[in-house]
Amino acid sequence: MEKKNERIRIFAGSSSRDFVEKMCSYLSIKAGESEVFQFSEGNTYVKIGENVRNKDVYIVQTVGLNANDSFMELLFWIDSFKRSSARSVTVIMPFFSYAKADKKDEPRVSIRARVCADCIEAAGADRVITIDLHSPQIQGFFKKPVDNLYAYPLLCEYIRTRAIGDLVVVSPDAGFARDARRYGSYLGVPVYTCEKTRTDHSEKASVNVLFGPLAARNALIVDDFTISGGTLIETANLMKKKGVEHVYAMVTHALLHEKAIAKLMESHIHKLIVTDTVANPHLLNNEKIEIISVAPLFAEAVNIIQNEGSLSSLFDSLPASVLKSSF
Amino acid sequence: MEKKNERIRIFAGSSSRDFVEKMCSYLSIKAGESEVFQFSEGNTYVKIGENVRNKDVYIVQTVGLNANDSFMELLFWIDSFKRSSARSVTVIMPFFSYAKADKKDEPRVSIRARVCADCIEAAGADRVITIDLHSPQIQGFFKKPVDNLYAYPLLCEYIRTRAIGDLVVVSPDAGFARDARRYGSYLGVPVYTCEKTRTDHSEKASVNVLFGPLAARNALIVDDFTISGGTLIETANLMKKKGVEHVYAMVTHALLHEKAIAKLMESHIHKLIVTDTVANPHLLNNEKIEIISVAPLFAEAVNIIQNEGSLSSLFDSLPASVLKSSF
Amino acid sequence: MEKKNERIRIFAGSSSRDFVEKMCSYLSIKAGESEVFQFSEGNTYVKIGENVRNKDVYIVQTVGLNANDSFMELLFWIDSFKRSSARSVTVIMPFFSYAKADKKDEPRVSIRARVCADCIEAAGADRVITIDLHSPQIQGFFKKPVDNLYAYPLLCEYIRTRAIGDLVVVSPDAGFARDARRYGSYLGVPVYTCEKTRTDHSEKASVNVLFGPLAARNALIVDDFTISGGTLIETANLMKKKGVEHVYAMVTHALLHEKAIAKLMESHIHKLIVTDTVANPHLLNNEKIEIISVAPLFAEAVNIIQNEGSLSSLFDSLPASVLKSSF
Amino acid sequence: MEKKNERIRIFAGSSSRDFVEKMCSYLSIKAGESEVFQFSEGNTYVKIGENVRNKDVYIVQTVGLNANDSFMELLFWIDSFKRSSARSVTVIMPFFSYAKADKKDEPRVSIRARVCADCIEAAGADRVITIDLHSPQIQGFFKKPVDNLYAYPLLCEYIRTRAIGDLVVVSPDAGFARDARRYGSYLGVPVYTCEKTRTDHSEKASVNVLFGPLAARNALIVDDFTISGGTLIETANLMKKKGVEHVYAMVTHALLHEKAIAKLMESHIHKLIVTDTVANPHLLNNEKIEIISVAPLFAEAVNIIQNEGSLSSLFDSLPASVLKSSF
Amino acid sequence: MEKKNERIRIFAGSSSRDFVEKMCSYLSIKAGESEVFQFSEGNTYVKIGENVRNKDVYIVQTVGLNANDSFMELLFWIDSFKRSSARSVTVIMPFFSYAKADKKDEPRVSIRARVCADCIEAAGADRVITIDLHSPQIQGFFKKPVDNLYAYPLLCEYIRTRAIGDLVVVSPDAGFARDARRYGSYLGVPVYTCEKTRTDHSEKASVNVLFGPLAARNALIVDDFTISGGTLIETANLMKKKGVEHVYAMVTHALLHEKAIAKLMESHIHKLIVTDTVANPHLLNNEKIEIISVAPLFAEAVNIIQNEGSLSSLFDSLPASVLKSSF
Amino acid sequence: MEKKNERIRIFAGSSSRDFVEKMCSYLSIKAGESEVFQFSEGNTYVKIGENVRNKDVYIVQTVGLNANDSFMELLFWIDSFKRSSARSVTVIMPFFSYAKADKKDEPRVSIRARVCADCIEAAGADRVITIDLHSPQIQGFFKKPVDNLYAYPLLCEYIRTRAIGDLVVVSPDAGFARDARRYGSYLGVPVYTCEKTRTDHSEKASVNVLFGPLAARNALIVDDFTISGGTLIETANLMKKKGVEHVYAMVTHALLHEKAIAKLMESHIHKLIVTDTVANPHLLNNEKIEIISVAPLFAEAVNIIQNEGSLSSLFDSLPASVLKSSF
Repeated sequence: MEKKNERIRIFAGSSSRDFVEKMCSYLSIKAGESEVFQFSEGNTYVKIGENVRNKDVYIVQTVGLNANDSFMELLFWIDSFKRSSARSVTVIMPFFSYAKADKKDEPRVSIRARVCADCIEAAGADRVITIDLHSPQIQGFFKKPVDNLYAYPLLCEYIRTRAIGDLVVVSPDAGFARDARRYGSYLGVPVYTCEKTRTDHSEKASVNVLFGPLAARNALIVDDFTISGGTLIETANLMKKKGVEHVYAMVTHALLHEKAIAKLMESHIHKLIVTDTVANPHLLNNEKIEIISVAPLFAEAVNIIQNEGSLSSLFDSLPASVLKSSF
Repeated sequence: MEKKNERIRIFAGSSSRDFVEKMCSYLSIKAGESEVFQFSEGNTYVKIGENVRNKDVYIVQTVGLNANDSFMELLFWIDSFKRSSARSVTVIMPFFSYAKADKKDEPRVSIRARVCADCIEAAGADRVITIDLHSPQIQGFFKKPVDNLYAYPLLCEYIRTRAIGDLVVVSPDAGFARDARRYGSYLGVPVYTCEKTRTDHSEKASVNVLFGPLAARNALIVDDFTISGGTLIETANLMKKKGVEHVYAMVTHALLHEKAIAKLMESHIHKLIVTDTVANPHLLNNEKIEIISVAPLFAEAVNIIQNEGSLSSLFDSLPASVLKSSF
Repeated sequence: MEKKNERIRIFAGSSSRDFVEKMCSYLSIKAGESEVFQFSEGNTYVKIGENVRNKDVYIVQTVGLNANDSFMELLFWIDSFKRSSARSVTVIMPFFSYAKADKKDEPRVSIRARVCADCIEAAGADRVITIDLHSPQIQGFFKKPVDNLYAYPLLCEYIRTRAIGDLVVVSPDAGFARDARRYGSYLGVPVYTCEKTRTDHSEKASVNVLFGPLAARNALIVDDFTISGGTLIETANLMKKKGVEHVYAMVTHALLHEKAIAKLMESHIHKLIVTDTVANPHLLNNEKIEIISVAPLFAEAVNIIQNEGSLSSLFDSLPASVLKSSF
Repeated sequence: MEKKNERIRIFAGSSSRDFVEKMCSYLSIKAGESEVFQFSEGNTYVKIGENVRNKDVYIVQTVGLNANDSFMELLFWIDSFKRSSARSVTVIMPFFSYAKADKKDEPRVSIRARVCADCIEAAGADRVITIDLHSPQIQGFFKKPVDNLYAYPLLCEYIRTRAIGDLVVVSPDAGFARDARRYGSYLGVPVYTCEKTRTDHSEKASVNVLFGPLAARNALIVDDFTISGGTLIETANLMKKKGVEHVYAMVTHALLHEKAIAKLMESHIHKLIVTDTVANPHLLNNEKIEIISVAPLFAEAVNIIQNEGSLSSLFDSLPASVLKSSF
Repeated sequence: MEKKNERIRIFAGSSSRDFVEKMCSYLSIKAGESEVFQFSEGNTYVKIGENVRNKDVYIVQTVGLNANDSFMELLFWIDSFKRSSARSVTVIMPFFSYAKADKKDEPRVSIRARVCADCIEAAGADRVITIDLHSPQIQGFFKKPVDNLYAYPLLCEYIRTRAIGDLVVVSPDAGFARDARRYGSYLGVPVYTCEKTRTDHSEKASVNVLFGPLAARNALIVDDFTISGGTLIETANLMKKKGVEHVYAMVTHALLHEKAIAKLMESHIHKLIVTDTVANPHLLNNEKIEIISVAPLFAEAVNIIQNEGSLSSLFDSLPASVLKSSF
Repeated sequence: MEKKNERIRIFAGSSSRDFVEKMCSYLSIKAGESEVFQFSEGNTYVKIGENVRNKDVYIVQTVGLNANDSFMELLFWIDSFKRSSARSVTVIMPFFSYAKADKKDEPRVSIRARVCADCIEAAGADRVITIDLHSPQIQGFFKKPVDNLYAYPLLCEYIRTRAIGDLVVVSPDAGFARDARRYGSYLGVPVYTCEKTRTDHSEKASVNVLFGPLAARNALIVDDFTISGGTLIETANLMKKKGVEHVYAMVTHALLHEKAIAKLMESHIHKLIVTDTVANPHLLNNEKIEIISVAPLFAEAVNIIQNEGSLSSLFDSLPASVLKSSF
């Protein structure tokens, strides 16, 4: 009898090498052999280094910094695997930067997330796995199944182990309010939503405010991603004015560039907790920043899929094996 | 030289006959001849009653009450026009009820809006026009262009002509906050957003609240659609507690059934302003309900398209001809 | 080693719950867990109640009475299963009402059966199984395999067990003549075909006639479906004139509404034998109507498919297990 | 202003050169320049001989004798025109031999007509025009519009001009009965349908019979196509037995090979009337065979399409210009 | 546990019956049952003679002489297998004659190889296997995997066993130079490339020349295919002028017609070595022509695929089992 | 009557701004308004700045240096135009860097040119125009028409105006031999092809050689593109050894990076003539490098297309207007 795990092969795209190492370590398997480089004029070249005939291939490539290079490489990977007769090709995109471009919020722009979805499917992918997708509708941009994991149980567990008392969860704006409630519910603490509003007829720019009192010593600002850190810092300022002592911030996808990190260092944010979905070198070796790996979570998802289990088991609580490997 | 308007043919699906009459009246043209009926066992039958070869066909069919019957009929219309060699087939769906089903908010459900989008495109539609789509991402469910009109300038004009002073706009929840700001901006009045929150650690159900004072005599609750009227009534109650004198409510798509209208009559809502996107017989002859037609707005959109203009001219302000015809 | 039957999951759409119960009883398995309801405004909602990852799913949904609701629900089911990573999704449609709409018999109509086929394939179905499809060409509307079962061996077995002597099979018109010969051949009795003809130059409407004598005491009128019962009753009248003593009628798909059944009661038809492809409540508890279940036949087809056998084994004769379970 | 006819270009595939000459003569235009040949090893080569950018191209290629060569050539033509930026490519197939292969009448065969339809659409055709398609469902094998013309008005006009009195129309079997009634109705004469039946329980092969008397001096057997002439000859024998004096036969598509024509010469058929849909050299110079050209009918269809008229005007009666050019 | 080989079924199209016999003999399995014939008017009919549900089907059909008949038959086979629920359908085309038609080397021609690729994919093939494809880009005309085998190791082994000393490999023109180097490298002998050039300004036609001396007693001209033998003969003449004693020629695909073979007999070519990719009756029983079967090579490829190995193991050297069976 | 040129709108992608300026200058029209930038994290954003409804849009974007950024931007442009209801979207790619990746020359690599073709078509392009495509088969990777222009008449005209006597054209290897003959034929001079060969059995690496004497004072090495300049320099060395006085080199697509240009300066190449298909800043202000613009050639192609002429008129000779504008 064929063992199901023999069919799994996990390959790393150039933007997710460390991530794949962690996944494979969790699963006690070896990563697939592959080669990728960029020609001097800019073309990307990929080559699979081993036989994948009839294998269930997982190609892991985050599309974060240098999104275009990463994305084109991903398409070439998918094509390589299909033309090499893999049985199935599952794309693992820990971060999908074009997810933000999911609508025509102005006339005559592209819905870039849909363009990317079409390219991924045209290249031949059979399934996509990602985490904390910017909007849930993006699953509908694909015809193929898209499994969207959640980082909040893992992130909240980090908070829980620190035993921070008298805490509230804060959503920086209305757009993330619904998600923020999941964090509050997991931690068993109240949730506050800031809002952008104007209080008079003047043309004064909208400001982020929180009406009423906020009686808590610690606040945890939550969001899905941050680039400049601006919203987090502004919200932290607001928290301080409301009398909060320690402000924590927590985002899944940390695209922070160097300048953003400098600003963050000087801000009221006590600690920023992020995941490793984006291979961001600027995050490393920074006392204020805590990186929690979601690679074990993705590895467990692969495990469940290969054993034909249900991924929804990962949505509300996490297996001990994942928790043990993530911190 | 061929005149561009000679190419236009507007056809009414069975759920939008009155709507098409108003559109054609605005454009001073005759509606297309067609026939539709349902067999005793339930099958829908459609037949075009005139030559449409090389015509730019607009088929108007709202998908609201009896969504499934209306939707299947729409698919058959599209196929009929394509097989009859129409040059283009534009679907006008004043309301698209499955737009609400735009995500997998639970495991193992269908993204029904995407299924519908695929069917519309498989049947052969070239473009879709609608209004106040539930979420902007739905445009990305289609490969074909989807033009989404806005009812708020028209609805706000109604308020403006009533000269209601000391007014605020109220969004019943965070989800509609971004849209509500468009209403506030158009009317030049402040915008308040209610939110669902829990203020302590207990398991008490979330309640709709508005922090801080609200100093206005009149409030205008805005939303995109209502079925039971529940959210509107609950928010109106909250407004009353905050000291508001007259509460107005304004929704684009009014799916209210009989029982809902009965409740509405007894509520604190002074006036409900809706549009005619849904052919809802229960709305008629009710003093508390004002129906504003968006048919002239759609007719003007057809006019602009046929004259190769830009629909974005309809987004921020409205031509006098539309305003004149809508009330 | 994995057992093949562990992969099977059979789910009931809302129009085929009893049918699925019978199928599962035949196969000694439990039906899949699922939930479906219609919102007050008309939208259909479906949800799978269990893990289907890598399962061979059979979704059973007859599209008969309320065809549009049933059909849309079917599309949503297919999408749900695909997005939940089922290995394959087989649609079992015991009746497909739009099969009748398989051609442009008038100018400017839709070929509705092709529209439905495209939607089923766009939603993601891998195979379709049905019975006594209105025309064999409809298999060609699909790219995916369509297996068309036959009810005649089962229906004829019913007659055979009644030992009705001196019998002829009668096709009510030329369109069903070819099929009728299969009934006659199975029963080993002669076949007569009525025809619609005009015998002079006048504009007199065509009438159903049968030239020459018909020397038999019992006649069995056969057809694929009936809605009003009109053709059956008219043909029965003709049989009576030809001197037939007892007239039996046999149709696979019985869409008869209440009024039709009332007329049937008063007609010359001695007994109407039908199957349960349409979940028709008006057929129940009627002495003149005999309902034979084809659910065991479909269950056996599932069994054969799952064991990689050939369905053509079901075309000419039936296994004892099916016969035992059907009456 | 651009003249619409300037857009038309009609090209002949190698199996329809004479046919296109007749079409172009009717329309008073020149046929498109093109080149086609078969390499010694069997490959087909096609080349367009003039600029077709933005033209409405009609490529005429009957798929009759040597069906495979003709069909492949047709696909290459379509691709050539699309890659040469024609505005539209309409396929005119006066005969489509694989139309007969429209169902799985045995297990494990191909639905070849659907395969061909998919290839035509994959190659890029925008519309298909044909005549007397074997079954109307084949239009549903295509997503693109398929216009199916009728030869019966033209064929019947031929009979009418001969003033043959005391005439009946005869369908050789049940399958063509519905079509035969159109001939009878046009000529205002009765219609008889032969049927294949068995009159006792024995295993005796089915025979073609016509019950009851047939009181007419002249009979006109009608069918859509004939290859061996067998059915026509057998039916003519039956007519003779029924006392008919002169038996005429009329088929649209005449694929008769040499041996078949020899048999026909010796048969009871007085006159065989056919069209020129199949470029069949064996039909020429035969006193018993009358060939009526449908090229003017197709040319008129092109004319109507280009002038955006309705083809249904050709279904029941024919313009004088067509009648004048066809005989 | 299911054995993998039980899933394999190899079927012969009408142009590859002998080839399949050899493949099956190599694999010690029985060829699939099937039936194919051509109707008198030219239509091709195919029927699978056994159950293929869930089987991995390999349909072998060379597209060489009578390319159009063979190709259409192939499409019908693919459709038959898909509609009969085969698990996968792999097309084995030992020769694909339209591969030569892979570009628009003139304006307004078809890219016929792409048209064929689209048809094969539209019909439902899952993978293609061929050998010595005319240009490697043709793999890119397909979305599905195309495995291209090489005949040169087998052909070179034939030379090696003859121990022909003092040998050079000669490419008849620049187009095959790159491939010729593979032959030279395998045999460990030098490679010369002839070129077509003009040495002065005159309009003299280009001639095939080889600059400089060529010091070898034996020359082996290599090419992928030959139809008329012209290039081989002309190059052999050139070799003779250069002082070569024995000229050998080696092509994979031999489409030589009778006249070509007559010319070859009289030419300077000492021995022509070909494979059996084209079922060419004119090659048989000719002392000058040696036919080497690649059927064992294809059979081994099937074996490797079914055992999930890598085909690249066949690219540089051959297993003993193949060598033993090929000569 | 509508004028055809009113329909044209030419837009510049960020990699072809100068190129579009030259095209528009040639056509005396204004370039389309548009906006494009890259977010700090790497996402590309595009926005059309004017109404394009029913316009024939030409989007010009070379895919050369920074190929991935340019390519993704191109996809977003196409999507923007389609969603803004442009009548047609023609992609002008003066250089398409992934054209080189047109085959699986190693096992388990991607055919990247096909992946790109699929993405361009999935995004919605209607036609592609390019120049000196790396291999002609790439046209077959697209279903949509691909027009491939030739630079050689323009490049040769440059040489002709310099009146360089006693000249030969040299192809650096066999792969470009066929193309080189077009240059020779245009200039009326002989063509020589270098080849890579080994002259004995040793494992010595292949070297580029030219057998026989080469009696000319001037040599013109031609190729389609160069990145490092290596092949050109090596061939120039060979020319020098053969006694050539002045060595010219001519390539269409010049991707030379800084280091390559430094080497070129020190080489035997007297003059390098290139075009502006790649926006390469390193080429500017270099005495040894002559840049000839092909923008007028593309502009003329647009002109011809819009006037429904034939592009093949540009293949063999050039209109005076183009020649005048290119140097």
